[in-house]
Amino acid sequence: MLDVSDSDVLASHLQELRRGTVVMAALATLSRPTYGYALLESLSRAGFAVDGNTLYPLLRRLEKQGLLTSEWNTEESRPRKFYRVSPDGDALLASLLAEWQALHTSIEKLR
Amino acid sequence: MLDVSDSDVLASHLQELRRGTVVMAALATLSRPTYGYALLESLSRAGFAVDGNTLYPLLRRLEKQGLLTSEWNTEESRPRKFYRVSPDGDALLASLLAEWQALHTSIEKLR
Repeated sequence: MLDVSDSDVLASHLQELRRGTVVMAALATLSRPTYGYALLESLSRAGFAVDGNTLYPLLRRLEKQGLLTSEWNTEESRPRKFYRVSPDGDALLASLLAEWQALHTSIEKLR
Repeated sequence: MLDVSDSDVLASHLQELRRGTVVMAALATLSRPTYGYALLESLSRAGFAVDGNTLYPLLRRLEKQGLLTSEWNTEESRPRKFYRVSPDGDALLASLLAEWQALHTSIEKLR
């Protein structure tokens, strides 16, 4: 079994496996306009362990890439920035889901 | 749709999604001793697009981490280094497959 000194190795490989799925999960969730913290909670409930230090820069990066749009909602007492997937983001999401399905099929063959 | 200037964005997100699966696929395939090029071919047949510039350094890294062992086969005219998963590698593979299954369940919920 993996000993204590190997737990970093285990963690880094698990982290690498999860990383690519966060973009897919965020794009899928943002079909409805959502602010950062609410998205964090939705992802956590869905089983995607991601913290704000990862998610918030990711949202800014996806917006810069034109995959998300954002809008400030100032109707409530505390203004919040709502993100929503763009048509380009929808196209990327479709590609990622198709790739995920292909990878899943490939992995099932190896098991 | 994503335009030409966005194709790098698409490629990088797809790449990130695939990256974490290569370790899992390599460990699963190396339950039988296999040399690098044969592994590359097996992975390719199984649908994991990976090139030698990625795979060979990865094999050395996994060996250094104690997840693979290697042995030279000098019986044939051309000596080849055969890799095989170690007990630690088997333990990691089990963890990765369990995580993959959990991620798959989470993603199915989002679709």
